[in-house]
Amino acid sequence: MTTHRTGLPSNVVAPQKASPMPFGRYRPFAPIDLPDRTWPSQTITKAPRWLSTDLRDGNQALIDPMTPVRKRRMFELLVRMGYQEIEVGFPSASETDFAFVRSLIEDDVIPDDVTISVLTQAREDLIERTTQALTGARRANIHLYNAVAPLFRRVVFHASKDEVRAIATRGTELVMKHAEQNMPGTAFGYQYSPEIFTGAELEFSVEVCNAVMDVWQPEDGREIILNLPATVEMATPNTYADQIEWFGRNVEHRENVAISLHPHNDRGTAVAATELALMAGADRVEGCLFGHGERTGNVDLVTVGMNLFSQGIDPQVDFTAGGIGIDEVRRTVEYCTSLPVHPRHPYAGDLVYTAFSGSHQDAIKKGLEDLDRIAAEQGVDVSEVPWEAPYLPIDPHDVGRTYEAVIRVNSQSGKGGVSYLLKTEHQLDLPRRLQIEFSRVVQGLTEGEAGEISADGIWTAFSQEYLEREEPYSLVTFTSTTSSDGHDQQVVDLVVRGEERSFKGEGNGPVDAFVDGMRQAGADIRVLDYTEHALSAGGDALAAAYVEAEIAGEIVWGVGIHANIVTASLRAVVSAANRAAAQTIPAV
Amino acid sequence: MTTHRTGLPSNVVAPQKASPMPFGRYRPFAPIDLPDRTWPSQTITKAPRWLSTDLRDGNQALIDPMTPVRKRRMFELLVRMGYQEIEVGFPSASETDFAFVRSLIEDDVIPDDVTISVLTQAREDLIERTTQALTGARRANIHLYNAVAPLFRRVVFHASKDEVRAIATRGTELVMKHAEQNMPGTAFGYQYSPEIFTGAELEFSVEVCNAVMDVWQPEDGREIILNLPATVEMATPNTYADQIEWFGRNVEHRENVAISLHPHNDRGTAVAATELALMAGADRVEGCLFGHGERTGNVDLVTVGMNLFSQGIDPQVDFTAGGIGIDEVRRTVEYCTSLPVHPRHPYAGDLVYTAFSGSHQDAIKKGLEDLDRIAAEQGVDVSEVPWEAPYLPIDPHDVGRTYEAVIRVNSQSGKGGVSYLLKTEHQLDLPRRLQIEFSRVVQGLTEGEAGEISADGIWTAFSQEYLEREEPYSLVTFTSTTSSDGHDQQVVDLVVRGEERSFKGEGNGPVDAFVDGMRQAGADIRVLDYTEHALSAGGDALAAAYVEAEIAGEIVWGVGIHANIVTASLRAVVSAANRAAAQTIPAV
Repeated sequence: MTTHRTGLPSNVVAPQKASPMPFGRYRPFAPIDLPDRTWPSQTITKAPRWLSTDLRDGNQALIDPMTPVRKRRMFELLVRMGYQEIEVGFPSASETDFAFVRSLIEDDVIPDDVTISVLTQAREDLIERTTQALTGARRANIHLYNAVAPLFRRVVFHASKDEVRAIATRGTELVMKHAEQNMPGTAFGYQYSPEIFTGAELEFSVEVCNAVMDVWQPEDGREIILNLPATVEMATPNTYADQIEWFGRNVEHRENVAISLHPHNDRGTAVAATELALMAGADRVEGCLFGHGERTGNVDLVTVGMNLFSQGIDPQVDFTAGGIGIDEVRRTVEYCTSLPVHPRHPYAGDLVYTAFSGSHQDAIKKGLEDLDRIAAEQGVDVSEVPWEAPYLPIDPHDVGRTYEAVIRVNSQSGKGGVSYLLKTEHQLDLPRRLQIEFSRVVQGLTEGEAGEISADGIWTAFSQEYLEREEPYSLVTFTSTTSSDGHDQQVVDLVVRGEERSFKGEGNGPVDAFVDGMRQAGADIRVLDYTEHALSAGGDALAAAYVEAEIAGEIVWGVGIHANIVTASLRAVVSAANRAAAQTIPAV
Repeated sequence: MTTHRTGLPSNVVAPQKASPMPFGRYRPFAPIDLPDRTWPSQTITKAPRWLSTDLRDGNQALIDPMTPVRKRRMFELLVRMGYQEIEVGFPSASETDFAFVRSLIEDDVIPDDVTISVLTQAREDLIERTTQALTGARRANIHLYNAVAPLFRRVVFHASKDEVRAIATRGTELVMKHAEQNMPGTAFGYQYSPEIFTGAELEFSVEVCNAVMDVWQPEDGREIILNLPATVEMATPNTYADQIEWFGRNVEHRENVAISLHPHNDRGTAVAATELALMAGADRVEGCLFGHGERTGNVDLVTVGMNLFSQGIDPQVDFTAGGIGIDEVRRTVEYCTSLPVHPRHPYAGDLVYTAFSGSHQDAIKKGLEDLDRIAAEQGVDVSEVPWEAPYLPIDPHDVGRTYEAVIRVNSQSGKGGVSYLLKTEHQLDLPRRLQIEFSRVVQGLTEGEAGEISADGIWTAFSQEYLEREEPYSLVTFTSTTSSDGHDQQVVDLVVRGEERSFKGEGNGPVDAFVDGMRQAGADIRVLDYTEHALSAGGDALAAAYVEAEIAGEIVWGVGIHANIVTASLRAVVSAANRAAAQTIPAV
């Protein structure tokens, strides 16, 4: 073995320079004095209790708060997934929330084993209103909070510790009083949150919680939920675990307290904070699907739950929502929240079961083959073999996904992938559903060509598939007259199956008039979606039109490109009709 | 104080049901036996060394790999931010990467204090090629990796431990040999990665690293970087910290080893794993801006660095990139990667400095006032007062952002926000830049109306701002003739400043012809972007057209809605022209 040193000078990495940013304005979070902490040696062995606050904390921080229809859709999703504690709103703060809670109860859509809960501040009128929202519920928890943290005492409420504690205890009394009046027959539970727990003195949080329990009097069969919010994530996640372990050691009635976590994600470590705090003894986790909520959001219940799943622990939630799959869960949440889930989001993002690197693809292939081999040797189905595969923490099929080896198109030339080509070289900004459709076209081609397809090959494929089809319909000439008075007229010459025919279509726009004409040529087309964009700046630019159409029960995309936006649109319709006729649409 | 219990039955939350998901297929990660771990009592007090692998690991996992132009742009951004170790590619695996590395060296764009590094596998031809890529570099590190983890030994490479160790040591020899030949005068450093460190036996990783060091012979002034990748994140983040602490205790030459982290985010805890592993003694962090990379991505260098900043620690990186601000950093990364940064991404997402809740807004307002008060009392600028404000972990201004109190439009009716209204009630899908423009219009209105604006008020505002302006230009009638033979003709009657005028425009599309006509009316318009979409399915649907135009040096949006796509487009142009003339465009 050679052991000489290189004759080259050694690189001593240059010392990093000071940042010009004003870091001196900030103070480090004071560590918790807990040298005998035990959580670092613990592991999580079972799922916590879950509370979804998608309909409260999540909804509160949406650009577009959910409509009643979307709220109901979210509630149904949560129930289907198996969440049994669902915070459904802040009824005293919002008429919509009040009405939504009433509708759940009055429409009798809350399963017997689901507890709804609602948030309230400590004012009597608000508490009374809150209990009125819950009248008739089979099971309901009321969640009272007030601020105990010193910054809030000093700056926001100008309240002493005694006053803050009194707000909490008096609020608890009022909750009990009005619940008795307005919620006869309801199995009733109580949750208290010392707000912002992470920014408050631990001793004072415990003191206030103990005082609240003097009122509520927890005992066997009569728990209290003490929810300890990291309303703002302020320190490394081990700190939250220390705080939770400290709290659990010092709070009274520990055996009848459900210690609940409510982590936010300001430092990007909410999932970690949750896991470490569970190791530190917490019983319950509040969060949102895919982590919605104020600012950076609440902890993502999907990631925390799927992390348990990946360790062989029953998450006690079904992330396929009864088999519809995690993608459908994601789409439902995206629908309800009008916000996207990121392509790299753990377990659910578009890209998380892909492998781009050839060596990753090779290793995964060998890993999957090895699982098959083990299954064959043992005479069992491969799903019964413990999962272990390179680069795939879980089997994507377990959440209704598939592993995708992304074939690099012409990667050696650095010309990149399919959408790169179409976007950068041809300025085409394909709608996502069309992207997916075309990626299957490309996939089919590369499989026939040993996984290789050139940049030109991609463009040729796109062009042949969408732009060049002339059968059975071919646009010869048309004259489209548009006037500001309303209706369009079109005189269209089409070649239909080799035979030239002339039509006159009418409608309130060129596409409409043209579809009217096409109908006479035997093509029954319903336009579902239409997008058109310029390919570059300036009036002399080409335009690309994309039409999603339903033709003979199938969904088909068509594309037209032309300097004239009208011509481009009509070509897109013809493209869709020709593709439908040729049945080239790849299977979904 | 009341201490009676409620007369209501206590809610005992129903036990959670077993998930139907096949969690039984998975095995828990075996914990590290390290009862005397010290990291949980540590805090981070200084920035680690940073390596950006945006151009290697990040780029490798993009749908559209970066073009040379985008790579250069990314490199320049990283330098401007102050990164001094930058992995620039995998030159032996890709001609593009080779050419890119050459271009950096030959164009002499690598600052003196920046070390580039490149990845290579252990084959001699690849190593030789790698060193050829680096010829002439002032400072360069070569990063060699091979798989040491048992799953890879067994399933992928069918290699014994001895064979795996020999690949690493032989590779190290070859790197030294070829570097001497091809990199004369280069200050040369070496990095070795035992792949997948998180899935390998700790003893064996240390054994292989020690064997590599027998070849490299680290000593004072001649470090080795031992990079310990969590190529796949497999366990809670404390486990990685345990692994790192164990490794640091057991590896030889610790004083001349830079222990480097390379965390991926499969479990959503890469930032936490990084922080805990830094507490466990690591010296260096590899990651990507906003966390790109295979699957869920590498650890996000922005979040880790900004987390340090928020604790008063110099991140030794400038997340404003010389004052352009974190948004511009984000936009550059989005441009280079063709992937979005999520609206809830810590420190950089669109929503992370917003407050939606009224109580949050109130608390923030009081907090900011209190900082002003303290500054006034102390006679200093408010930026010199230690930052402490409710719900805002940092001052958004420190990264070139602003705090945004999002005014709930008609929240009491549950009709939601601005984009909800426009999308759901009016089917308008505004381009994002137009959304931003219009939100400022709304903000201006609500400030005039005590923060309240009704759903109808929003629509009225949109309509008045974009749809109803008739001054100075008003479209009276037009006839647009489009033929398949090419050019459009338009006969347009416009009212210009009260005077009816007729123009005939020509162009290769109706917008182009119309802009030609408008030019004759004195409006010099350059169309920058154009989008049009149907408002619902069917040929009888309305279409909305959005035009972004440059008019008299200003960027202006215009909107037109009409059943006819041509009419809608022309109206959008008129809308933009009228808004520019009225100078109603809110300041950016």
